[in-house]
Formats: sequence, C-alpha cells, structure tokens
Amino acid sequence: LWTGTMPWIQSSPTISSNPVAMFIDLCLRGIGQVVFQNSPMTGLFILVGLFIQSTRVAIHGTISLVVTNALALLLGFDKGLVQSGLFGYNAVLVGLALATFDSEAGGGKHQGYSASTLIGSAVIASFTAILFVMMGKLLVPYKSPPLTLPFNVATLLFLLSTAHMGRVTYDSVRPPSLPEYDSTPTDMQVTAAQFFAGSIRGIGQVFLADNLAAGFLTLIGMALCSRIGAVAAWMGSALGAITAICIGVDAAAIEAGMFGFNASLTVTAMFLFYTPSIGAGILAVIAGVMTVIAQQALANWLNPWGLPFMTLPFCVVCLPFIIIQGTTSIVIAVPLASMTIPEDHLQRVNMLSDGFAFLKEALQTPTSDSRKSSSKMRSKRLTKSLSLLGEALDEADHAQSSRALEATGIQSPTKKNPQKKKGWGTSTEQIQHNETKEAALTIFASLLEQHNNTASQQQIPLSLITNAFQAAGLQDMEALSFASLVLTFIDLDDSGTIDKAEFVAFALVCHAMHTIREKIAQFFEFVDEDNSGSVSFEEIDAALEYLGQPVLDDDSKL
Amino acid sequence: LWTGTMPWIQSSPTISSNPVAMFIDLCLRGIGQVVFQNSPMTGLFILVGLFIQSTRVAIHGTISLVVTNALALLLGFDKGLVQSGLFGYNAVLVGLALATFDSEAGGGKHQGYSASTLIGSAVIASFTAILFVMMGKLLVPYKSPPLTLPFNVATLLFLLSTAHMGRVTYDSVRPPSLPEYDSTPTDMQVTAAQFFAGSIRGIGQVFLADNLAAGFLTLIGMALCSRIGAVAAWMGSALGAITAICIGVDAAAIEAGMFGFNASLTVTAMFLFYTPSIGAGILAVIAGVMTVIAQQALANWLNPWGLPFMTLPFCVVCLPFIIIQGTTSIVIAVPLASMTIPEDHLQRVNMLSDGFAFLKEALQTPTSDSRKSSSKMRSKRLTKSLSLLGEALDEADHAQSSRALEATGIQSPTKKNPQKKKGWGTSTEQIQHNETKEAALTIFASLLEQHNNTASQQQIPLSLITNAFQAAGLQDMEALSFASLVLTFIDLDDSGTIDKAEFVAFALVCHAMHTIREKIAQFFEFVDEDNSGSVSFEEIDAALEYLGQPVLDDDSKL
Amino acid sequence: LWTGTMPWIQSSPTISSNPVAMFIDLCLRGIGQVVFQNSPMTGLFILVGLFIQSTRVAIHGTISLVVTNALALLLGFDKGLVQSGLFGYNAVLVGLALATFDSEAGGGKHQGYSASTLIGSAVIASFTAILFVMMGKLLVPYKSPPLTLPFNVATLLFLLSTAHMGRVTYDSVRPPSLPEYDSTPTDMQVTAAQFFAGSIRGIGQVFLADNLAAGFLTLIGMALCSRIGAVAAWMGSALGAITAICIGVDAAAIEAGMFGFNASLTVTAMFLFYTPSIGAGILAVIAGVMTVIAQQALANWLNPWGLPFMTLPFCVVCLPFIIIQGTTSIVIAVPLASMTIPEDHLQRVNMLSDGFAFLKEALQTPTSDSRKSSSKMRSKRLTKSLSLLGEALDEADHAQSSRALEATGIQSPTKKNPQKKKGWGTSTEQIQHNETKEAALTIFASLLEQHNNTASQQQIPLSLITNAFQAAGLQDMEALSFASLVLTFIDLDDSGTIDKAEFVAFALVCHAMHTIREKIAQFFEFVDEDNSGSVSFEEIDAALEYLGQPVLDDDSKL
Repeated sequence: LWTGTMPWIQSSPTISSNPVAMFIDLCLRGIGQVVFQNSPMTGLFILVGLFIQSTRVAIHGTISLVVTNALALLLGFDKGLVQSGLFGYNAVLVGLALATFDSEAGGGKHQGYSASTLIGSAVIASFTAILFVMMGKLLVPYKSPPLTLPFNVATLLFLLSTAHMGRVTYDSVRPPSLPEYDSTPTDMQVTAAQFFAGSIRGIGQVFLADNLAAGFLTLIGMALCSRIGAVAAWMGSALGAITAICIGVDAAAIEAGMFGFNASLTVTAMFLFYTPSIGAGILAVIAGVMTVIAQQALANWLNPWGLPFMTLPFCVVCLPFIIIQGTTSIVIAVPLASMTIPEDHLQRVNMLSDGFAFLKEALQTPTSDSRKSSSKMRSKRLTKSLSLLGEALDEADHAQSSRALEATGIQSPTKKNPQKKKGWGTSTEQIQHNETKEAALTIFASLLEQHNNTASQQQIPLSLITNAFQAAGLQDMEALSFASLVLTFIDLDDSGTIDKAEFVAFALVCHAMHTIREKIAQFFEFVDEDNSGSVSFEEIDAALEYLGQPVLDDDSKL
Repeated sequence: LWTGTMPWIQSSPTISSNPVAMFIDLCLRGIGQVVFQNSPMTGLFILVGLFIQSTRVAIHGTISLVVTNALALLLGFDKGLVQSGLFGYNAVLVGLALATFDSEAGGGKHQGYSASTLIGSAVIASFTAILFVMMGKLLVPYKSPPLTLPFNVATLLFLLSTAHMGRVTYDSVRPPSLPEYDSTPTDMQVTAAQFFAGSIRGIGQVFLADNLAAGFLTLIGMALCSRIGAVAAWMGSALGAITAICIGVDAAAIEAGMFGFNASLTVTAMFLFYTPSIGAGILAVIAGVMTVIAQQALANWLNPWGLPFMTLPFCVVCLPFIIIQGTTSIVIAVPLASMTIPEDHLQRVNMLSDGFAFLKEALQTPTSDSRKSSSKMRSKRLTKSLSLLGEALDEADHAQSSRALEATGIQSPTKKNPQKKKGWGTSTEQIQHNETKEAALTIFASLLEQHNNTASQQQIPLSLITNAFQAAGLQDMEALSFASLVLTFIDLDDSGTIDKAEFVAFALVCHAMHTIREKIAQFFEFVDEDNSGSVSFEEIDAALEYLGQPVLDDDSKL
Repeated sequence: LWTGTMPWIQSSPTISSNPVAMFIDLCLRGIGQVVFQNSPMTGLFILVGLFIQSTRVAIHGTISLVVTNALALLLGFDKGLVQSGLFGYNAVLVGLALATFDSEAGGGKHQGYSASTLIGSAVIASFTAILFVMMGKLLVPYKSPPLTLPFNVATLLFLLSTAHMGRVTYDSVRPPSLPEYDSTPTDMQVTAAQFFAGSIRGIGQVFLADNLAAGFLTLIGMALCSRIGAVAAWMGSALGAITAICIGVDAAAIEAGMFGFNASLTVTAMFLFYTPSIGAGILAVIAGVMTVIAQQALANWLNPWGLPFMTLPFCVVCLPFIIIQGTTSIVIAVPLASMTIPEDHLQRVNMLSDGFAFLKEALQTPTSDSRKSSSKMRSKRLTKSLSLLGEALDEADHAQSSRALEATGIQSPTKKNPQKKKGWGTSTEQIQHNETKEAALTIFASLLEQHNNTASQQQIPLSLITNAFQAAGLQDMEALSFASLVLTFIDLDDSGTIDKAEFVAFALVCHAMHTIREKIAQFFEFVDEDNSGSVSFEEIDAALEYLGQPVLDDDSKL
C-alpha cells in the first residue's frame, strides 16, 4: 500500500525500454512533485481529483505538462531531472492556472476551449522549463531548488501581458484597484466544520481546486508516497487557517482553503528539506505563520493589477528557510541528491546513530583489556581513522580489496551466510561470529610461525602481513595500501607490530567491511552538510549533537 | 568592406599612442556594443543615424557616453572592458532616453537644452558604470554579461524620482493609470508596407529612434561588422512584429517598430552567445516570442507609474536563455573571452570539425598496417593523449621544445617551407612530405646503429631517443619530458621500444607540431564549455555530437 | 573617552562568564550596528535618545531586539555574529518602525500598546534573523553584508499585509495614490538654521527619530566609537540635504532630516568598507547623491500602496558600491573579517606603507656594498621571497621555527630586550643592534672554521648552515626548511654559498623575524583584496599604487 517513490518503475527493464510508459511515468511524477512527492501514484490520484474538479482545467494542465516534458527532452536537458518530474510540476500548474483564470469575451469564466488559452498554456509552460533551469543554476550554491517560482513568474508574465493583447480575452482575476487599509472582513466567525473543510480544501488549492474530493485525493495520494509528508501537508493547511483566524479574515475564504495551500507547501517542504525533528517543527511553525503574512502582503502588492498571488507567498518565505541550511544547529539538512521521503531521511539518521555506537564499540572492545590507551586517545584515533577510511574507500577498487581479503582466507566463513544482512543488530552479531575468530587465530598462528621461532613475543610486524597478502597473490597496490591502512587502524598502540587480540579485531573488522563501508558512506552523506566531499570537525560535532551524543573534545581534533 | 571588429585599430602603434584617437575609438565601440557589435565603424553609422533622428537627443547621448567612459578610466576599471566599449553602451542609451522623455514645464516634449537633463544624463549615465561592474560581478559564475539592465535600472530610477523633484520638469511618459484588461486596439490590420517599415524601424528603436534612416543606418553599420548579426537583428525585429500581430496590437505601433527592438536584441544575442546553428535558431524563436509577451507584461506592470519599458523585456527574457548555457545539448555556447562575431564562431566550429578528423587520421594511418591494436584501443589512446598533450602544451616552454626538436635534426626540412600554412588541407599534405620521412629514416638508422649491432630487431628503446636529445645539447627538463610524452603517444603497443614505422610517425607529428598545437588550442577553447581549464568527457561528447561524429564509447573513458 | 569597539568587554572573564551581561552587551551592540558601530557605548547613547524621542516606540524596539537575539541564540546561529550585534540591528529597526507607523482603529497615531503591534514586532523582527542569514549567504562571494535589507523587506511585508488583516488596525503611512508628476513643493527656500537642524536630525532619522536630542546623542555615541565614522555620518546627512535642495523639495522635509538618514548611512558605509582616502571620498559623494535620487524614486514607486521607503534607498545604492570592490584602483577595500573602525583601517595602511619601505631596506642594505646585482634583480627577488615567506609562515610551526633559530644562538640577544616593540621605527633600530651583529660574526667564524682551513674563501655553503642547525639539535623538518628558505632569500647572488655580509644580514633578519612576520601578515591581509589566500601581482601593484610607491616592473613579475 505505502509505495514510496517507486524507483522500481524506472529500473524495470520492461518499462524503461518502453518510451511511452516512461513518458507517462515522468508526467505523473511531475504532478506529484508539485507537493514534493516523486511518485507516479501520487500524481495519478491528484490527476483524478483534478478531473473531478473540472475536465476542462485538467485537460489544459495535462497539455502543458506533456508539451513541456517533450520540449525538455528535445532540448536535451538533464535526463535525471526530467525523469524525476522536475520539468513537469511548474508546467502543469501553468496549464491549470491559465484555464482557471480564463474569461470569456463578454466577461465571466470561460467554459469552452479557445486557441489563445491552449497555445498560451503550451508556450508559457514551455518557458517554465527555461526558468527552472536558470533558477536552478542560480540556486545551486545554496542547495535549494527553485520551488514553484518558475510557474509564478511565467504565469504572472502572461496574465499581465493579456491586458495589452487584442486577440486574447483574459480579464483580470480581481478588479485592479489601489489598496484600502481600513476595510474589514464582514464575517470573521469560523465554525469547526468550516475549519476542517478549509484545511482539506487547502491541500487541493495547491492545484487551484476548491473541490473537497480533490483535496482528499491529493492527501491520499501524498500518503501513499509518504505519510509524514501527508500529515505535514494537512497540518500546514490547518496552521495557515489558524494564523488567518488570528489576523482576522473572511470565514468564507478559510472555508475555501485559500489560507491553506501556501502554508501547506511551506510546512511540507520544511519536513522534506530537513530531517523530521523538533527543530524542523519549530522552523515549520515560524515559516508557516510568515507564509500567511506574506500571502496577505502579496495580495495587497498585486492589487493595482488585479493579479492572483498563487504560490508566490510559499516561494518567498520558504526559500530563505531552505537557504539558511547549515547555519542553524537545530536541524539536519537532507542533501538534494539523496532526497527521497521524510520516512527514509528519519531512518537514515537513526541508522547513523546506531552506526556511531557500533563503530566505537568495534574499535574499543578488542583492546580494552590489553591496552592502557586512554579513551581520549581512542576517540582521536577513531575520528582520524574515519576520515582516512573514507578517503581510502573512495579510492580503493572495491572488487580488488575484497579479492585481497579473500586471499588471506579470512572471508571464507561469510560465504556460508551469503544472504544480505539488514539492520545493524544482525551485523554486530555476525561480526562476533566464532568462525571468523577461529579462522583469524589459525592464520595468526601460521603468520607467527613464519615470523620467528621464539613464539614468546606473540607479535607480528605489520609488514609481514602485507607480505602475506602479496604472497597470496595480491598485486593490486590500491588494495594493499587499503589493507595496511586497516592494519594501522587496528594497531592502537602504534607499536608497528600486531598481537593476537589486534589481529582478531582486524579479521572481525575485515569481515564486517561491507557493513562498515555502507555505514561510513551513510555517515559521510549525512554529516557532510555542505557537500564539500569532506567532513569537517564542525560537521561531526553538529551531527553528534543532533544525535544526542557528546561532541568531540578539542584534543581529538588535532 | 566587411571590417569585423577592427582589432587592428587598438594594436596600431599610431592610434594606440594617441589617447584622443583611442578614446574616440572606445566611445564609438560603445555605441556599437548596444547592438553587440564591438566595432567603431558600426558605432559611427549608428551615430550618424541618431543625428539624423534628432541632433538634440544625439548630443545628450554623446555627452553621457563621453562622461561615463572618462569616469570609468578615472576610477581605474578594467581597461580591456573600457576599450571594448562595454562602459559606453548603457551610458549612451541613458542620454538618449533622458533627452527623449524630457518634457517642458508646461507639458509637451522639450525642444531646447536644460541644465537638469544635461546634468541628469551625465550623473545617471555614470551610475550605469557602477551598476555594470556590480551586475557583471554577480553574473560572472553564469558567464553572462548584464546586457542593458544597468541602463534600464538607472533610467527607471531617474524617471521615477522626477515625480518628487521640484526643479526638474519631467512628465510621465504615459499618464499613470491602473491597467484596463478589456480595452481592445482600434486597428489591428497591418499592411505589408507597414510590416516592412516596422521591421526596419525596430532596429533603430533600440536607440529610441523611429526614423527609417536611423533604422537602415543601424542595419548597415551592423552588417559591416557581422552580416549574420545584421540578418539576425532584422529577422528578430520581424519576428517581434509577427508575434505582435498574432496577439493583436495597434497597427501603428507595429509600423513604428515598437515590437521590433526588444525581439531584435534577443535574437541577435542568441546568435552571438551561441554558435550559429539550427539549435540556436530554435532558442532564438522561443526567446523572441517570449520577449514580446514580456514586453506587454512589463508595459502593464509599469502602468501605475506611467513609465516606459525600454529594453527591459529583452533583459528579462534573454538572461535566462543565456544563463542556461551548458545545460542544453542543442547549442554550443561561445566563451565570453573569445567572443567576436558569429562568422568567426562558425568558422572555428568548422575548423574544429576538420581538426578532429585530421588528428584521428594522423594517429591511425602510420600504424594501421603494422599493428593489430583494435580501433577502440586507439580511440582510447587518442582521448587520453589529447588531454595529456593539452597539459604539456600549457606547461612546456614552446621555444624550448622547438629547440629540442631542432636538436634532433628533424625539423630542418620545414625551414625550406617557412611560409605559414592556412587551413587543414595543406597541413595534411605537408605532413606527408617525403623530405621529413627521409630525414626521419636517416636518423632512425643512426640511432639503431648506436643501439645495437644486431640490427635484426629494428627496435629502439624510448630511453635511447631521450638520451640522443640530451647528447644533442638539450638540457631543459620541460622540453625533454614533452618529447618523451610524444614518444609514448606514438608507441602504440606500449612495448617501451619504437620501431621504424613509429619513428616516422613521430617525425611527422613533430613536423606538424605547430599546426597540431593550434588545433588543440582551438579544440580546448571550444570544447571547454564551462571554462574550467580542463576538458571533461561529457564536453568532448557534446562537441562530437554537435559536429555529427560518433561519441566516445564508455570504454575509452577509463 | 574614545572607546572604539570595546573588545575588552567580551574578553573580560567577569563579563563573559555572566550571560546576562553578555546579552545586554550584544543587544546594545545591535543598536550601534545600525550606524555601523560595533560598540555597546554607542548603542547606549542611541537608546537614551530613543527613549527621549518616545518611550513607547523605544520599548517596542527593545522588545524586538531582545526577542530576536534570544531566538538567534536558540536556533544556534553563529555566535560570533550574534555577539557582534549583527542579529540585532535589523530587529531593533523593525520594532521602532512598527510602533511609529502604528495607527488606532479610528485613525491617528496609536498612543497606547496593542497586542497586535507587540506580537507583530516580535514575529517580524524574528523573521529578519532568517532573512539576515539568507542574504548574508547570498552575498558571501561579494564580500558585502546585507545592510538593512532584512529590516526593509520584513517591515514592508508586514505593512502590506495589514491591509488584509481584520484584527490589525494599521493604516497606510501615506494615502495610496497614483503618482503625480506635475506637483511642485510649496516652499523650497531653506534657511541655514533649517539646514543645520536637518543635518543633525538626519542622523537620528535612521532610527525614525525626528528629535534633535536623538540626533545629537546618536552623533556623540558614534564619535565615542569612531570619530571618522561620526564625521562621515554628519557630512553624509548634509550631502543628502544639499542634493535635496538642488533637485527641489519641501524645506520642511529637509528640516525634519528626511533627506539626511539614507545619505548619512551611505557615506558612513563608504568610509567603513573602504580605507579612508580621497578615492573613498569620491565614491561616497557619487553614492550619496545617487541615494537621494533613489529615495525619491522609491517614494514614487511605493506611492500606490502608501508605503514608506525607510532605509531601502541606502540599501539599493550602497550595495552596488560595496560589491564593486576590487575592480576600482582608487580605493582599498577592508576585509569584512578584520573590519573595526576607520581609524584602525587608516593606521593599518600607514603601517603597511612603512613596512614596505622597511622590508626593502632590510634586504638591500647588507649587500649594497658587496654585490653588483641590479636593483631590478633585488626587487624581483623581494616580491618572490615575499610570497614564499608568506607560504612558509602559514605552514611552519611558529614555535618550532623559533626553537630552530634559538638553537643557532642568534636569538639570545633579544632576550635581553624582551619588551614588545611598537611601531616600525624601533624595530629598524633594533635590527641594527650591534649585539646581534657581533653574535652573528662569531657564529660565522666558527662555521667557517668547520668548513675549511683555507679561510681565504670566506664562503660557507648553505648546506653547512643547515647541518649546523641539525647538529644543534633541530629535528623538525618544517623549521629546517623554513631556515633554508630564509638562507636562499639572503643569498642574493644565487651562488649556493653565503659570505660574511650575507650571514650578518641573515642574523639580522632572523632577529627581526617577529616584526617581519607581523608586517607580512598585515601585508597579506591588506593586499589580498579578493581574499583568495594568495597575493597576485595585480594586488601588489594596486597596493603599491595606493601607497604612492612605484609599481613593480614587468620584469620582476616573472
């Protein structure tokens, strides 16, 4: 039932080889992306809602969507972006808006189809593709997408231009007028039913649909992809309505969901761009309230031209809150490239938290009885090793290094349990597996024999192990240096030799290498807030603080 | 007759030593830069047109131009930019606009000269210099100039401020009013004569001149610098008029060229910032149509203040289309630093296309009969060698490396044909010259004799050749490493030795080094779309695709 | 009396350990930062002025200030920024503005306290914290702060939104209207008394205070921190009034200081962001005049909504003038990180100027009699050595290198004069100290003896000195390489050996190393205009030119 972003569609050979299926998939994703859900299922539910609202409007939206995606493919824009529906979400909104605001020659809303609105929808929607790429480029250093700014800018441009078009019969959405500061709403009393209906309609109003069914279908569609997303959207819509009640607006507008859609988008965005947490909630509330104030401000600002504010309030308020990422310690920003759904982001933070604990344990346990190194020294080594390992993992040929480990005979036990492990718990169990330990002890004994006959020392020089790798047929320099790295990482007393306990630890670590690798990759992805490709101590501190663990002492940062 | 950008003026010792002549040159270039022609001849033709239009307005424009350029030199802004007229094009427009929009105390256009407009022109034009530098800095990462934004911003600022100036008698250009969405033009019927006159006037309207003569002179002036530019300007003006007819506007406005100038600038820009091609044409049409829509939108937007839209529509639409460079594969962007005229850009792409073919041939021919290396392997080597050579060429002291080659006696034959070769065809002929081949065979024989007496092997180690260079007196390490690079580049079978066929190929390549160097430099300049100073495989692929050649297979990219 | 930025407050253990005292300090600094004075004393004087102006308004300002700073600490924004009051200056202005523009339900200014304005002040002020961080991030590459843009944007947003708020009784500041271009002020005659009062009030108007006392207190408060700043603020206010008289405005507005505050901020900023100089004065005058024009333009632009322009004119004009830093050679920009008060900046430039002279002398004197190397060669070496030394100083462990020098016995004489020297004059004296010279001659003699018995040569190879260091117990590679660097830096004839004169120079340079190090650090900080971390020849030229010294000839730049 809970289908997430459905990545299997694009990786399925049947579908990915069928251009029509792929095109339908990316068009539906485009609709879902309006509410930040990269899922064709969400898109489908919303599309049904839009057809229930108005066939005519839905058709205009669909035409805009199809034309713009086709153009994006023709112009050769980034295929990954096109397939995620990122060229579609602005386009579909343009079509919906132009059809909704269309008026007949004699006044009143248009009921039929006119060439000017059909062509206008296609042309203006296409222009959003250009604007999306441009704004995306401008925002790259700030790790923010352009949100629905391309839709708002292009649509306002068209609505403005219609006043000077003889062959296009658009009327202004509201009569152009100078603002009146002393007018008061006639009825500010909102009932619970009105409030509830308004909060649901607010979700559909993102697509300019004031139908309750459209609101419900959008909510359900969102929930299929991400339940946290759907709840955030609903709460955001309600927050908008509450703020509107506080500042005093017409009850009818609240019932129609007019104060829900911008706040709904803002709050949903906060829980997508930041890992769900109390901190994200605080930002979401501030941003949601400001969205309603910005909405009233923009409505006034657009008064003299009689223009609608659409989702401009959301863009104007949400962009600052996204751009500040990395400057506030109460939230962890999700890197754009690894963004999926809030549920995933939350799980990754939890796994990371476990991972920290695991890595510490893995390093400290084997030597705790035999070594007198202070915990401070170990902690220093841990962070240093982490960064070294990170570099090595990037550079090492993974296939080669596993061949290297295999050559030592250490990895053979794993072959008996080839099923992929899930979660950290199992791995921890796995790493303490007796088989590995026994194999390690055997190898250690044979290495010791090779080294010297006076077995009293029970110490093997690191170089001997490296030689053993080479003797076992390991030629690849990358893998060899990787192995030596792990050895120095185990040799906690910097003696240049390795004892039995250390060798067992080495074997265990090698054995769990796959898991460690995954965790470190997750660690880097998460901790590296500024996407620099390297992790600074400030970033590690921020992550540790966020996870409720003590930050590194200054001494460990040398 | 077709004078291009006339770079000889600034390199002529007579003129460059005369500050007055240089200043006149850069002022005239400033006028030409309004229509993207860095040519004093274009500027002169336009200036004549402006004086025909109105002496008074032209004088204001000239004053603004002279004052701003003087200030730019005084403040010590980049001399190269000043000399290209880039501080002038916004300034001249300010003077023209302020004089055109000037009104007398009692109403009606001003006929004489007033201190406020003269001083205003100078002050506001000077401010464009600051805005130009600022916007230029903001746009550096996006490889776009600020177009005429400084002119539009500064002029709007002044026109707005005049409403609150007691001693300045400007009236609004149009009466301030709220927009009316239901008004329709009285006469939308456009005759062919009106259309033609409008398309010509549209070119002159860039300079706020509605005189037919001014339009023609601007067109001729542009053609003297670049015929492609002139045609683009005219076609752009016509495209603007056609779009205006489609949306429905007053025929009189089309006849006056009011719908030509913004679209004309947009289309000209598309053919300057992108190499002329079908792709550039597609972008130009989309951008041209959007410019007219943006023009109507901005006219409406500025209604409440009665302000003119000037060239703001062009800026607003053209900037996105320039900023997206590098994201669409249907066009090749011209690097700002090497921008001259579209004709040059086109020629460079054609030479590059030939260059690819030549380089492939030069590398494959000599070994095709004696080697069994697959074409894939050669292709891989080609791309690797290209990047290595590129690095080496940057680092190597060119004089030194030619001395190195000379020391081997290989280059002596060239001395007999010292005239510089033009075009690729001749060079291909040249490289197969028998003299070079014979000289190479003689040297090879002597090297072989040095190496061993058992001449059966017919192979010389690479090191021997390097030693020969040193024995011949070559001390420079750069040159030596450059020579070894070329040797490994020729040793197609990685044997570490070189045979007769390979040595002849080496000699031929050395012989053609000058031509190869030029081609590689052109290759880099063109292919390196993101000006990173290095060429990525994606960029090579994009260039190959654009040139209609098969892209590199993934295997070659290791 | 002249207390500067009072950094001792935050470094005092008594105060820094008291969170309440620290919070009061940063709040007062926030008030001072509005007029660019990072001083709690300035803030205190202004706050007194604000309470004299209006207790009610001052209380709103204080609440905004306290709430925003508390939020900034809660959200974990950069502590350094918070402690410098940079989260406060926008916040306090929001509170002052909202209380000033507040109107009662029946019309007329509000005299009491309303929940909506109190809460509004706090919420909108908090939003400036978000906007400040966002705009700060956007402007980082351009080394400009966001000035008071966050205050202007947030306040305009709120004032606009009140038109659509049923429960908030704000009226528009002016009645909304379309602009009239033909209206003229009734009385443009300004008396000297009006002009003087206006210039003082203009300083207070930054805080929306039209009370003369508030203006005077602000001026005095600024002078306590920086007298240059205070003079610039006053001159800026006067310049604004003069420009306003020239363009023709109501005398009453000039008397009220309405034309002073934006120009005052602009001129103060020019003398803070650029080192005080004639060049900075030229920019300040242009920017000040443009600020008044922009003020009239923005007043007109905001007419249809009846909104105040506040300090938007200052932001709009000042930002371009700050962003162009580095492109004009007539000013030296002060790096943001080392910005304090203009007096300091001026002193640093003067010290730098002396420093150049000193370094040249130190290098040229010891060899002038014994070497025939041309001055050009020495100059070339100077600039090369400067950059090398800069790199070495960054990398070398300072403690280690002083240990190295100590090992040679050279530094012992300094121990006799351990007091820290101030100014360059004393150091120059110090370096020629006979003790050092004598010690150096003794060491040289012993080294010579070590080297050879045939003392006729009087030359020691550089390697011998390095060996001596090692023999003296110096193990650290960094320090050794640093010492060799200094040696090559002294060996002016590239002979590979060092004679007596050179060795004495070496000793003298080593002796003065601390002073040289400081100067080089200052040199780098100042000359490195683009904060790249390295100094280009263009930057050195710009600095030399600015200091009135001949630029490096092209030959020295190889």
